[in-house]
Amino acid sequence: MKSELENAPHRRLNILTGEWILVSPHRTKRPWQGKIESSEKREKINYDSECFLCPTNARMNGEPNPNYKNTLVFKNDFGALLNDTPLFNYTDGLLHAEGESGICKVICFSPNHSLTIPDMEVNDIIKVVETWQNEFTELGNLKHINYVQIFENKGAIMGCSNPHPHGQIWAQHSIPTEIEKKTTTQKNFYKKESTSLLSKYIDQELSIGTRIISENKSFVTLVPFWAVWPYEAMIIPKRQMANIASLNATEREDFAQQLKTLTQKYDALFNCSFPYSSGIHQAPTNGDNYEEWHWHMSFYPPLLRSATVKKFMVGYEMFAMAQRDITPEMAAEKLKSL
Amino acid sequence: MKSELENAPHRRLNILTGEWILVSPHRTKRPWQGKIESSEKREKINYDSECFLCPTNARMNGEPNPNYKNTLVFKNDFGALLNDTPLFNYTDGLLHAEGESGICKVICFSPNHSLTIPDMEVNDIIKVVETWQNEFTELGNLKHINYVQIFENKGAIMGCSNPHPHGQIWAQHSIPTEIEKKTTTQKNFYKKESTSLLSKYIDQELSIGTRIISENKSFVTLVPFWAVWPYEAMIIPKRQMANIASLNATEREDFAQQLKTLTQKYDALFNCSFPYSSGIHQAPTNGDNYEEWHWHMSFYPPLLRSATVKKFMVGYEMFAMAQRDITPEMAAEKLKSL
Ligand SMILES: O=P(O)(O)O[C@H]1O[C@H](CO)[C@@H](O)[C@H](O)[C@H]1O
Ligand SMILES: O=P(O)(O)O[C@H]1O[C@H](CO)[C@@H](O)[C@H](O)[C@H]1O
Repeated sequence: MKSELENAPHRRLNILTGEWILVSPHRTKRPWQGKIESSEKREKINYDSECFLCPTNARMNGEPNPNYKNTLVFKNDFGALLNDTPLFNYTDGLLHAEGESGICKVICFSPNHSLTIPDMEVNDIIKVVETWQNEFTELGNLKHINYVQIFENKGAIMGCSNPHPHGQIWAQHSIPTEIEKKTTTQKNFYKKESTSLLSKYIDQELSIGTRIISENKSFVTLVPFWAVWPYEAMIIPKRQMANIASLNATEREDFAQQLKTLTQKYDALFNCSFPYSSGIHQAPTNGDNYEEWHWHMSFYPPLLRSATVKKFMVGYEMFAMAQRDITPEMAAEKLKSL
Repeated sequence: MKSELENAPHRRLNILTGEWILVSPHRTKRPWQGKIESSEKREKINYDSECFLCPTNARMNGEPNPNYKNTLVFKNDFGALLNDTPLFNYTDGLLHAEGESGICKVICFSPNHSLTIPDMEVNDIIKVVETWQNEFTELGNLKHINYVQIFENKGAIMGCSNPHPHGQIWAQHSIPTEIEKKTTTQKNFYKKESTSLLSKYIDQELSIGTRIISENKSFVTLVPFWAVWPYEAMIIPKRQMANIASLNATEREDFAQQLKTLTQKYDALFNCSFPYSSGIHQAPTNGDNYEEWHWHMSFYPPLLRSATVKKFMVGYEMFAMAQRDITPEMAAEKLKSL
């Protein structure tokens, strides 16, 4: 690693989106007088009679939840997408719009009101992975669904409106911006090299070692060279797969184990229930051939210095480009050590 | 306006970035149980002896501020960019990085510790505009500076670390992502139509009227058709100019007046000192010809429902695409009415 990358301001290329990130390693010394978040220390209770997601309680729409034992999946009562929206086309001079149809679902990870992924047994995380696989396959097979986004917003600071551990799926007709970008870069690479961009990338990262957080037979967890969020991480399968549907039993377990390891390290980092948004990026489900796609899961956690001081992606970051202070290598070293 | 755009989920095209935004008008009925921000009601004092930005006080680096009467500009003591960074090139397999040099400055808008733009006299806002012009020209003329980003983070919720009203300028060697996108779309349009994209766009918006917030001889303030943030707005000069340097005295005053009107409406919306990030997008300063560029100022305010409930751009928005609930037309109507 060139010492400039450790000390001097520079920009790094995200090879999956084609966009650059500004890195300012010297800026870690900046004193902080800004907003202090409340660190969410709450009592860990297994069941909350006021919770819309706990077993047997009524949901927002009044329907009772079943007395579920593992995961629970249901349609979001206030989804941003509706299944029956007509796919109209609207053009008026410089104004362009299109109807968008889709389905929004909620997945409770466990009946336990306080059991987050880092504290779940690997066997129970495997059930979450299986639920993701089933939902992806079922939704992806629908004729009008061309992309399935699986994600989790964890913590109030990440806009999560209910502390009961849950994730979401938004499945839709159009192919979202981020996926378009990643399809282009992966296609270009595959055409030239006949291997997936991420296969080659994890080979290189494993041989260098400095950004690897953990690894097992089927997965690598690392801080990408182009990480934006302070402790951003990616879990990447070693075998190239366009989507999670083809994960076999061993891979499911290996994935669950990496999920647990990474999120445990996160909780240990600032000694708090670590907030993040996580998401799985996979090939579109429109029936085209996506031999270049290599699915992966990313974690975008906002905390920078402590449980109460986060990185703000504001002014410069909104108007110009992404910016970070600690280097990806510093973040990886810290996470590995925990 | 087709009634689908008022009621059904759809996506809209941002003609300046080429990216789509998901709009979910039906979702405004969603109940909110998530994070409640503290609304910043603080005493309005003219001078705070603890403030690094008030006249005559010492800054973080120990240097005393002058007893300034209008604006004050100084180099950020903890800038993300440094002027003397070598422009190295780093490539190792799939890893690409480049040295980035630049200058970060802070601009205090007024010596008064509590005087935000909406409460300033138009004459004093004109002095801020003049400061922006001078800084843009001076920085843009430097050989190694190819882009100058002027912006303000207002409010603790927007990562602002000092309540004394101030903005920032980050001037840098490379051309940031957002500017690259806007250069491409404007160039393509100009080649075909020999007029700037935004000239044509404001003509259309003025003839429709529903998204206009206010207007004077030289400027239009509107909610763009593709707005992402709930009450996002743009101030656009009617005369095409690549950057703010060529604003004349009348235009400076008209600009200052629109700045005051928009921010006053913002403060009135939820009866609070309205937080936002604002920024001016202009042509790069690398000496190339940017005849297609039409500078504009945008406001990205996070509040959604009240002074304490904001829109979270999290999971889906980070992994897939931008998403909003109220329509741009609802937002414009509300702001116009205030
Ligand atoms: O320079 P400040 O005001 O301390 O910092 C603020 O604005 C910067 C530019 O948008 C961001 O990088 C920081 O995360 C934010 O806290
Ligand atoms: O659906 P939820 O959890 O209530 O809502 C949360 O996640 C959504 C998807 O990322 C965002 O659009 C919302 O702003 C956020 O509050």
